[in-house]
Amino acid sequence: MNVSAIHAELEQHFASDLEDIRAFLRLKSISYTGEGIRETADAVAGLIASLGGEAEVVATPGHPIVYGELWQDAPKTLLIYGMYDVMPTDEDGWMAEPFGAEIHDLPNLGPSLICRGAVNTKGPLAAFFAAMRGVQRVEGILPVNLLFAIEGEEEMGSRSFPAFAGQYAGQLKRADVVLFPFFEQDEAGMPSLVLGTKGLLYVELICNGGEWGGPTERGIHGSYNAWVKNPAWRLTQALASFVDKEEQIVVDGFFDRVRPLPQRQADLLSEQIGSGLMDAQVFRDAYAVRRLKDEDDRAAWQRLFSQPQLNIDGLFAGYIGPETKTVLPHRATAKVDVRMVPDMEPDEVLATLRAHLDRGGFEDIEIKVYNSYPWSKLSLDEPAVQAMIRTYRKLHGEVQVWPINPGSAPYYVFERLLGLPYVTGGLGHGSRQHSSNEYCTVAGILDFEKSMVTFLDEFTRGPRAPQGET
Amino acid sequence: MNVSAIHAELEQHFASDLEDIRAFLRLKSISYTGEGIRETADAVAGLIASLGGEAEVVATPGHPIVYGELWQDAPKTLLIYGMYDVMPTDEDGWMAEPFGAEIHDLPNLGPSLICRGAVNTKGPLAAFFAAMRGVQRVEGILPVNLLFAIEGEEEMGSRSFPAFAGQYAGQLKRADVVLFPFFEQDEAGMPSLVLGTKGLLYVELICNGGEWGGPTERGIHGSYNAWVKNPAWRLTQALASFVDKEEQIVVDGFFDRVRPLPQRQADLLSEQIGSGLMDAQVFRDAYAVRRLKDEDDRAAWQRLFSQPQLNIDGLFAGYIGPETKTVLPHRATAKVDVRMVPDMEPDEVLATLRAHLDRGGFEDIEIKVYNSYPWSKLSLDEPAVQAMIRTYRKLHGEVQVWPINPGSAPYYVFERLLGLPYVTGGLGHGSRQHSSNEYCTVAGILDFEKSMVTFLDEFTRGPRAPQGET
Repeated sequence: MNVSAIHAELEQHFASDLEDIRAFLRLKSISYTGEGIRETADAVAGLIASLGGEAEVVATPGHPIVYGELWQDAPKTLLIYGMYDVMPTDEDGWMAEPFGAEIHDLPNLGPSLICRGAVNTKGPLAAFFAAMRGVQRVEGILPVNLLFAIEGEEEMGSRSFPAFAGQYAGQLKRADVVLFPFFEQDEAGMPSLVLGTKGLLYVELICNGGEWGGPTERGIHGSYNAWVKNPAWRLTQALASFVDKEEQIVVDGFFDRVRPLPQRQADLLSEQIGSGLMDAQVFRDAYAVRRLKDEDDRAAWQRLFSQPQLNIDGLFAGYIGPETKTVLPHRATAKVDVRMVPDMEPDEVLATLRAHLDRGGFEDIEIKVYNSYPWSKLSLDEPAVQAMIRTYRKLHGEVQVWPINPGSAPYYVFERLLGLPYVTGGLGHGSRQHSSNEYCTVAGILDFEKSMVTFLDEFTRGPRAPQGET
Repeated sequence: MNVSAIHAELEQHFASDLEDIRAFLRLKSISYTGEGIRETADAVAGLIASLGGEAEVVATPGHPIVYGELWQDAPKTLLIYGMYDVMPTDEDGWMAEPFGAEIHDLPNLGPSLICRGAVNTKGPLAAFFAAMRGVQRVEGILPVNLLFAIEGEEEMGSRSFPAFAGQYAGQLKRADVVLFPFFEQDEAGMPSLVLGTKGLLYVELICNGGEWGGPTERGIHGSYNAWVKNPAWRLTQALASFVDKEEQIVVDGFFDRVRPLPQRQADLLSEQIGSGLMDAQVFRDAYAVRRLKDEDDRAAWQRLFSQPQLNIDGLFAGYIGPETKTVLPHRATAKVDVRMVPDMEPDEVLATLRAHLDRGGFEDIEIKVYNSYPWSKLSLDEPAVQAMIRTYRKLHGEVQVWPINPGSAPYYVFERLLGLPYVTGGLGHGSRQHSSNEYCTVAGILDFEKSMVTFLDEFTRGPRAPQGET
């Protein structure tokens, strides 16, 4: 591949590619409401067709999954995994229309696209196609075969994806590796590469009035709490028992399967921290967090990459509007997510939560499971991982290697069900996913496109040892 | 007064009075949004004018208060206290348009008006005027002078009422007693009379991310809880420390000023419970509560009338919509109301809550005060109270005498600021105030009108001892 020629072509063509990407971002595709889902799935099929590939919008019990093939009779095959669904935009404080894909000049970042999905992950997905079209314009043909599995339920826990993977296992297993295109540079420009992803268990704890007390059918006048118990007090008591005042999880058995980082990854992590390659202050500044659970940055990174979490995503009971209303609610709920590290398994973790509630006398509190899938890991020696590391080194000079992604994605489907390794990556920067003013920088989109080209080159040609190895 | 002639007149005229009452109920007058407040205040002034009285819509820093006079040079003067504001209607499960005042046939209750404010308290207010117009049609003139103080902020803690009472003290003090017209019959038809009302302290506990941890500006991706603390966990810990698992309040000093019921009221309560006059099962059935805090009904009634409460009215943090969203919120809040019994004082109680948080290491959690006013009590010997008791005995045969109203109203303004006794009453039944499908029975409205006439007669003529005394 004539990488430099393709990079030059992408620069030439960027203004037009940018408009294509913005048009794709403007398509609403809100996971849990289903708004715009079908149209966006069709648009993804159109992107595959724009490369000359064949696409199929596969119906599922939930949102459709777009399967596609661009077969070039090349020696190597990449399975492109991605998602076209996004989170809702109910947060306060949006500075622009959440699906407007407007370009605003952000402090320290420069011109940036403000849009739900800009970084997570319709932005990188659309930019990947732009990059591949650039390769085709210069080279005529791609150096790899591409398969596509682009789902529409990632933000709801990829519920239909495992069944799809089973159904299409024959096609998918033709891939050598799975690539998830993403903008991996942080606010300071540092790219990172993850060697796995945490598992996700997302539940709702529901406390209804019943035999233990509380109103059973509707909220009643608040003044009756003098003689009627309150589900909000009961749920509060139950929740408070899961952690101590320092927010340490105190659930029996919760940590039984947690194992320390593999030695090689632990060494690599401390080497990166020691050399100043990884700086937690960048995170504190970017996320407006004044204090981490650990004062010491080394301990903080260790915790992030080696520890599970039990997070309250949402709390609700009674009246939450302006001013005052006195009511004794008949129901109180909490949305909670667990992020699991090796070797925790979702069903076992769920059982520890249930047992904890029961031990505390909260047998009546229901645990409703929304999402549940395990962690996955991959090897630093995986050729695609090494190719991505070389890509970062070539184009940016340095890269952080993260033992695991603190977030979650259903990569276990590839690793466990299909036996496929995977790599996440790309240059480019965006942030505020799941929050207001989600953005990606405009310059980062072009860097991302170039990095995808360089990755293809590195992946197809393989390493020129010894330089470039980690 | 020719009571029976007036009762007959009210029956004759009821169909037309009912339509007037429904029209008044259809006026929205939502306290905290201000929707329809001004129009409803003007309508109240119109009701006073319909008796030939003079009304003034008095501006306040909040919603206007309607002051009125109907001076008949009578020996006795009643100050009619009431409210024209209502709670919002955000609850699920309304079977009819919340301000439609539709008539539906309710099980065991018969034809009933479904409307926000039907019982709390625009229904009784409008019906009182209908009753007085009936007296005028038969007698030409009322046997008492009437003063009116009808506020529009009762559901927000009557914030402007004390200042108004001070400003109009000269006029208001001409009253012998304050009357609050209300439908006092329960689901089983039993009327009750209250000898006071609990005080109210309504606060919001607010936990924001800050120096202790947590995101400070916005919610961030839920996966970062692995190294960032969560305000929802912190608020949960703080709340859980206020009560034990049996929902007993465990705040130092909270109960210091709580004193037992006066002996005479305790004896009267015991007697009513012993005779089966007061039956907690009626409450359990009506409010769909399977178990009270006390298994024993006697203990339950004692608690209701002699103990304060600390109730969670609302809990909120993060994402509470359908399905899932993983977020680490930057803020968590709880709306809490305290109902105070003699001799608790709001400022002292607030100080115990603040001290409790501080002792627990929650100095950062803010307590925002929305409403704060003290309890009030009145004597069983008060002539107006005795007149109301005689009214119930005459028209219904029996009455429950409650040592205190578990709910709250700013009667301290009358008792403490103006030195005026007060009485709440009337036959009629309604329920589900502050909840969906608030209602009052149609038949009860007529009973209420008649009871207001009988009360006027009993109050102006005085007791014919010994019968009728309690």
